[in-house]
Amino acid sequence: MRHGSPTENSILQRILKITAPSTKNLGGRDAHLGIGDDAALLRPSRGHEIILTCDWFLEGTHFLRGKHPPDSVGWKSLARALSDVAAMGGVPRCFLLSLALPESHTGHWLDAFLSGMRRASREFACTLVGGDTTRRREILINVTIVGEIRNVHAVLRSGARAGDILYVTGRLGEAELGLRLLKRGKTQPRSSNPLLKKHLYPEPRLAVGQWLAEKRLATAMMDLSDGLSSDLPRLCAASGVGADVECEKLPVVQLSSAVRGLGVDSLQLALHGGDDYELLFTVRSNRVNVLPKSFHGVPLTAIGRITEQRDLVLLKQGGRKRQLHPGGWDPFRNKA
Amino acid sequence: MRHGSPTENSILQRILKITAPSTKNLGGRDAHLGIGDDAALLRPSRGHEIILTCDWFLEGTHFLRGKHPPDSVGWKSLARALSDVAAMGGVPRCFLLSLALPESHTGHWLDAFLSGMRRASREFACTLVGGDTTRRREILINVTIVGEIRNVHAVLRSGARAGDILYVTGRLGEAELGLRLLKRGKTQPRSSNPLLKKHLYPEPRLAVGQWLAEKRLATAMMDLSDGLSSDLPRLCAASGVGADVECEKLPVVQLSSAVRGLGVDSLQLALHGGDDYELLFTVRSNRVNVLPKSFHGVPLTAIGRITEQRDLVLLKQGGRKRQLHPGGWDPFRNKA
Repeated sequence: MRHGSPTENSILQRILKITAPSTKNLGGRDAHLGIGDDAALLRPSRGHEIILTCDWFLEGTHFLRGKHPPDSVGWKSLARALSDVAAMGGVPRCFLLSLALPESHTGHWLDAFLSGMRRASREFACTLVGGDTTRRREILINVTIVGEIRNVHAVLRSGARAGDILYVTGRLGEAELGLRLLKRGKTQPRSSNPLLKKHLYPEPRLAVGQWLAEKRLATAMMDLSDGLSSDLPRLCAASGVGADVECEKLPVVQLSSAVRGLGVDSLQLALHGGDDYELLFTVRSNRVNVLPKSFHGVPLTAIGRITEQRDLVLLKQGGRKRQLHPGGWDPFRNKA
Repeated sequence: MRHGSPTENSILQRILKITAPSTKNLGGRDAHLGIGDDAALLRPSRGHEIILTCDWFLEGTHFLRGKHPPDSVGWKSLARALSDVAAMGGVPRCFLLSLALPESHTGHWLDAFLSGMRRASREFACTLVGGDTTRRREILINVTIVGEIRNVHAVLRSGARAGDILYVTGRLGEAELGLRLLKRGKTQPRSSNPLLKKHLYPEPRLAVGQWLAEKRLATAMMDLSDGLSSDLPRLCAASGVGADVECEKLPVVQLSSAVRGLGVDSLQLALHGGDDYELLFTVRSNRVNVLPKSFHGVPLTAIGRITEQRDLVLLKQGGRKRQLHPGGWDPFRNKA
């Protein structure tokens, strides 16, 4: 091994060195004890609730060692976990990183991984405060995020009522398209490639989520991680409602002529593509006029309406209706 | 599959059903939104800090699928993570469970695993509030614990000063002995077997840790997860001190005649055996008289003294001194 035989202690030291922000950024308000003790300590803000969420990011299941740049693995493992905080309308505070690595990956790969994670950590103001490392044949990542939100402001999945208007942020299906291009080896996995950017470096919709929560505009909200056809039924189930989705209104991806030849369908991508990390939310019909067409450059698009038909999601296309069945990502259904 | 093809949704529902305590236990004080939304919400107690810690528990690394009963895997994955909260002197509040399973283990194995986890959850008053599940060839577990502690009461690793007396709780090496017996197949992995109990069903020293923190008795504290010879140098490094350990004082395991024939050495077990989850702590010499011989049945034993010789840990045996080198568990050093 180029780096000698690194012990867990020395790997922790490297993670600490590379990822921890300056003491100034940590500040008195944030976590004041991080990696190196038994646990991290966090001083909660008064009048706020703590938001907790964790996410697997596993080689072979969520990323491919040979296809995904380590920098993207670092960025995305944090960004996708932050998406759950965005979906509550919360503000990120800190995170824990559990990392299992082959010894062969404790050199350049780890450096690049931590570099991507550090960029996301700074971009979204979320500080690494602890974690656990071990050795493993395969690369295993688990990220726990701690966020916070002013008491009673959190937006749950369960608040949608019949008549509410259904919205999404951004475009749907871009990440799935990027994954397909990456798998076919048609494009280099560079961060500068706009077709791959959404798949490799997703941006959790934190600002939109916080704004919708603060203004009390969203009655229900969740993030789209498994695809609209899988996630919308979850929101409906939590709220005890159904939904009508209008195909013509979906913000589908714009397929370039180069991509069009690959046999991909932008509607299918928008309905079933995973990993978009856009927000799906509902707004009372009498407050829709408050919503702009976009927020800080992120489009907000009405795609349908909440109905009373409990757990029935209908897709309306050209005057016809058909039931929308889950076709997105489910690790226990999709044989990897 | 006996259970049909379970989707992630249905597995989440089973975890929720089996592990969630009654609404009464959740109460207004604890987490008020758990599994099923994007994240969990927790209302922090006033005047308290949040304690955060996470721990891997991986098949092949931390447990063996064929040797460890699933009930023990469930108990231990939670109990060992709670040990980090005990080591700060904190009170557990809730936890997140990240679980990756082969489809073949979503039936009986999952039931027994959740049963063990539920018992630990009740025993140590720590509520499951969220998590993430996925499918995987191997069983992967990650547990994040959220605890809390009154502001400024947390006991860190860094508070030991020269002259402080070094203590441990319980006996050292029992868990390692249990692991060796289990690996040799000499004993059935039953919870009733006292030789295996410490290895299969460890008890985090929460009550002792809280008492030491509240009374301001411990100047530094950590839990013994990797073995005394690996963990004590960490406490010394954090505090910028050294330590003398007296072999004769170590609370070693009592070897029965049946076990004595196996060639195990109780001193080696006590120095290098991992997984004990006892507490290692230091007390100012002028407060030692306040400490009882045991606390709620858990022995408290003085095993040595903190010295000024930075990072030098000496072992005193029969009038001779030698340097104690780490020989405990380190996943990047021990080839599994």
